[in-house]
Amino acid sequence: MDDTVLLTGAGGYVGGAILDGLDDDYDWRLLYHNPPPKEPDHPYMVGEITEPPDAREACEGVGAVIHLAGDPRPDAPWDSVLENNIHGTKVMFDAAVEAGVERFVYASSNHAVGHFETERTPDLYQPEDEFRLDGTELPRPGNFYGVSKAAGETLGRYYHDEHDLSVCCIRIGNLTEGHPPIDYDRGQAMWLSYPDCAHLHACALEADYDYEVVYGISDNDRKYYSIERAKEVLGYDPQDNSAEWEGEEKVV
Amino acid sequence: MDDTVLLTGAGGYVGGAILDGLDDDYDWRLLYHNPPPKEPDHPYMVGEITEPPDAREACEGVGAVIHLAGDPRPDAPWDSVLENNIHGTKVMFDAAVEAGVERFVYASSNHAVGHFETERTPDLYQPEDEFRLDGTELPRPGNFYGVSKAAGETLGRYYHDEHDLSVCCIRIGNLTEGHPPIDYDRGQAMWLSYPDCAHLHACALEADYDYEVVYGISDNDRKYYSIERAKEVLGYDPQDNSAEWEGEEKVV
Repeated sequence: MDDTVLLTGAGGYVGGAILDGLDDDYDWRLLYHNPPPKEPDHPYMVGEITEPPDAREACEGVGAVIHLAGDPRPDAPWDSVLENNIHGTKVMFDAAVEAGVERFVYASSNHAVGHFETERTPDLYQPEDEFRLDGTELPRPGNFYGVSKAAGETLGRYYHDEHDLSVCCIRIGNLTEGHPPIDYDRGQAMWLSYPDCAHLHACALEADYDYEVVYGISDNDRKYYSIERAKEVLGYDPQDNSAEWEGEEKVV
Repeated sequence: MDDTVLLTGAGGYVGGAILDGLDDDYDWRLLYHNPPPKEPDHPYMVGEITEPPDAREACEGVGAVIHLAGDPRPDAPWDSVLENNIHGTKVMFDAAVEAGVERFVYASSNHAVGHFETERTPDLYQPEDEFRLDGTELPRPGNFYGVSKAAGETLGRYYHDEHDLSVCCIRIGNLTEGHPPIDYDRGQAMWLSYPDCAHLHACALEADYDYEVVYGISDNDRKYYSIERAKEVLGYDPQDNSAEWEGEEKVV
């Protein structure tokens, strides 16, 4: 039973990418915020991550949590990210600790460091630019959503230090299904393909680590997020690269 | 009128140290959470930092804010620090931006990095130990209070980047009036004397900077917080050192 992996925010697009790639690899338990439009292939529940009883029920008998749930809108208002993203993540950590969960994979975001871009745009989107963020830098959120994701990372650090569960924060880039964003240098620089997204989360479920902050992008020629740490600690081995695409066609 | 400095949390002990040292140096406006026990020497109001109308009234016509208010208890429960420290700080930043405040000095705390100590204790309290935190490291809070202070720092980063006000986060050590803590290596390592506390805040009101995270301790022989950044950017020139004391007596 401890092999069960709880996936919160299962109805979102990151959850979709993970289930697409890892459907048969784990005993999933899915937590939805709203009733799913079609019957899921795995055991599931509908509940609020901000409600401790729901969070406890979701975590019961679980070995690992992938926590994606929250308000995903980059322009989400403060009150919503304060409640859903910051408080909700704290409630999930509490429930995970109480249930004896051993690892907690947390969906952070590129928005936690969005303001690093402002002063370097657009040079850093070019393939030859060598600027890299590596996850050791202090956050520079570009919006309240990013503030909330940075706060979730700090909560993860606290719960790791205090309760010894492994915590991996993944600053997810620009996830798109199929081809990378078209005519959008920035989106191509932080592109994360669906298969690489699933693989990266599998790595975070399998590898041995304490507390990590890594970037979640494919191995794009254009990049300003380093994926070295993810490769080194998690064994991340991305297969996609936005430079291999022209529009909707893979050309390499 | 823009020379007015708003001091929130004026009734607390950090506020007391600042007013002790800088009473005549600024046109103060004091914000109290509870009615002050005796009539203050400066214009004041009583209000809630979590209430936008109170925050706006407090910031009106103000050139700088020293924001100390919040739940100061290291063991404060999550709900209180979420509301008073994280949300309250956001409300104060909003009010400051709306009022055209140019600089915002934020009372962060050693608790934002409390868990760095756990694995190095007690070596790092010794004068010969060379380990230093310098403010560029990611937070490792030791409690929810510390989580909230780290979140306040991130909010400061966001408001600086987004609205261009100068923000200085001071990770305040162990402030005591008169002598340093007795028979307490840790407290002596992070001692901040009342005069040095006032001087450091004056530096943060006067110096030219964008966004800073500095440690607020005296120039103690024992230390694991670097004060180099505060010296370099703010012109901090601390006069006290816990090593110069034996018990309640200054011996150097």
